[in-house]
Amino acid sequence: MSVATDHAPEPVMSHLDALLADRTLPDLRARLSELDGWARQDLASIEAELTRLGDSSLVGKSARHLLARGGKRLRPLCVTLAARLGDGVTDAAREVAVAVELVHNATLLHDDVIDLGEVRRGAPAARLLYGNAASIFAGDFLLVEAIRRVQRAAVPGELERMLAVIDTMIEAEALQLLHKGDLATDVATYLHVVEGKTAALFRWALGAGARTAGLGERAQAAIDRYGRHLGVAFQLIDDVLDFAGDAATLGKEPLADLREGKLTYPLLLGLPRDPDLGPAIRAALETPVDQPLPRELSRTVLGSLDRTGALAEARAAAAAHVASAIDALAALPQMAARAALGTIAEATVARER
Amino acid sequence: MSVATDHAPEPVMSHLDALLADRTLPDLRARLSELDGWARQDLASIEAELTRLGDSSLVGKSARHLLARGGKRLRPLCVTLAARLGDGVTDAAREVAVAVELVHNATLLHDDVIDLGEVRRGAPAARLLYGNAASIFAGDFLLVEAIRRVQRAAVPGELERMLAVIDTMIEAEALQLLHKGDLATDVATYLHVVEGKTAALFRWALGAGARTAGLGERAQAAIDRYGRHLGVAFQLIDDVLDFAGDAATLGKEPLADLREGKLTYPLLLGLPRDPDLGPAIRAALETPVDQPLPRELSRTVLGSLDRTGALAEARAAAAAHVASAIDALAALPQMAARAALGTIAEATVARER
Repeated sequence: MSVATDHAPEPVMSHLDALLADRTLPDLRARLSELDGWARQDLASIEAELTRLGDSSLVGKSARHLLARGGKRLRPLCVTLAARLGDGVTDAAREVAVAVELVHNATLLHDDVIDLGEVRRGAPAARLLYGNAASIFAGDFLLVEAIRRVQRAAVPGELERMLAVIDTMIEAEALQLLHKGDLATDVATYLHVVEGKTAALFRWALGAGARTAGLGERAQAAIDRYGRHLGVAFQLIDDVLDFAGDAATLGKEPLADLREGKLTYPLLLGLPRDPDLGPAIRAALETPVDQPLPRELSRTVLGSLDRTGALAEARAAAAAHVASAIDALAALPQMAARAALGTIAEATVARER
Repeated sequence: MSVATDHAPEPVMSHLDALLADRTLPDLRARLSELDGWARQDLASIEAELTRLGDSSLVGKSARHLLARGGKRLRPLCVTLAARLGDGVTDAAREVAVAVELVHNATLLHDDVIDLGEVRRGAPAARLLYGNAASIFAGDFLLVEAIRRVQRAAVPGELERMLAVIDTMIEAEALQLLHKGDLATDVATYLHVVEGKTAALFRWALGAGARTAGLGERAQAAIDRYGRHLGVAFQLIDDVLDFAGDAATLGKEPLADLREGKLTYPLLLGLPRDPDLGPAIRAALETPVDQPLPRELSRTVLGSLDRTGALAEARAAAAAHVASAIDALAALPQMAARAALGTIAEATVARER
């Protein structure tokens, strides 16, 4: 995405903009822009830290290439908003905010090597520019830096919690790997993968942010519940966008997840409803990755997901998780940061990339 | 290597045996077997921890496959011997000993993916059995577990030092990557890579072991110097073995480093001495990795390194570093652990795998 606004380049605003594509609800956009004041303040120093990382080596370039492309910075924003529910954004919160984004980017770097990803955030994947090796080492480098920052944040037990989250993410990736290309994957397995690979990091971001700011036990439980539902909703929409988004908005090729053998929610919903979907998925999986997917095949898959209502149902499931996330916020003190978290949840389900 | 002794399987002794191939100096072998008593005690619990790790997932299997193959366990032995120079082997020392082996194995898992390695420790590389993805995640998993253990060891500042060492290793790997297949690599660059990718972890293993046992500043400096020279010697011999070892003893194909584009010390020494060596190296680098190297080409390279004295000089350089390592030990109290470190240094230069 980089900078796509009319006025002078403002990286922080462009990150917020990225939460909403142009075509989404204008009132949501207006509400999100209200966040501008603090979000600018909270995210600016985090952004500065992120773009400062990485030297001129191939590994440093790999790391910087990805970090400089921006992305939504949604996870650091979660950390700072959670902190604002308590004592506010301290140095510890900022360390955690940078760390969570680094963990996220480390997984992206390793995932791209694993999935042979070619496009990420609208640009060639780092592995294509600097090689698989540099991407693997860059992922390791970012992970080490993330751990260093959480250690520096000095919240008792936080490093252990972070390491447990990374373990959960790896376990989920392993499970996803086991079911690669498996049309018989059940929905429970899929949801377990989603909770592990996506929701766990959101939960940690919000929980750790809250812990840096001394939130009480009840508020902490509420923020954890919010994080879990937000994370699941986020992944469900990600999955939907693989079938519904277009390449230009999305910053990557559609049907990319499917071609990587990921049997996502819409597919799992559609399969028992349409006998033609299975053969089409198998044909898509058998198409060599270096060849474009035949148009006919894409049309069959997309048509089926549309006709069977699978895509609509997946969107509805995401909306239900967003509703649960917003519901969880009710246990928190009524303040601007809480409203902002609600807006972010709504923006997540409305997003087009 | 796994278990290759006549008597009942004894993993700990087989690790010590691995330090010496059958054909090396018999008195060194005898002296090393004197270590048996404590080494058995010190390494047994570490070994139990190492083989307990990893679940039944693909990622867990990847990790266990490599850990169960054993290897020399030289780095954990360094930790425990350094600890024995002070207050002895505590729980903290054991955590660090396990951690250093985990970091080492994590780098092996990532390296095999990067180098497309096919054989490791005499068996197919984990990536061939469980896939590149599982190897990348398994490396991440071991790294996380290593960090958790160092954190648990609770030696002030140790986690930060460990993270700095991992950064140094990544930086060295990046430099090595930059000079991949580069016949103009200078010796200074090569040595910088060796210090970073190999010696740094040995230094940390020894230094951290000493710190768990309360060694004084002077002893700490001596152990650091020992670790650095031991590590450089170890890598120099590793490089030599790529040209001098045979596949059965080595547990991997000879000339594997060269084919991965690594211009190691013997090659850098030989290049200016023999105008035929450069073209032979280039031809070797151009041979597709899935094809065996033509016998003629291997003979040319090996003959040149022999004739120019490059191989002998690399061995001599390793021996000089071993001498410096042993020299550094003089500043330490005269005790059995110090003698054992001396023996290990001698064994390192005499080893054939």
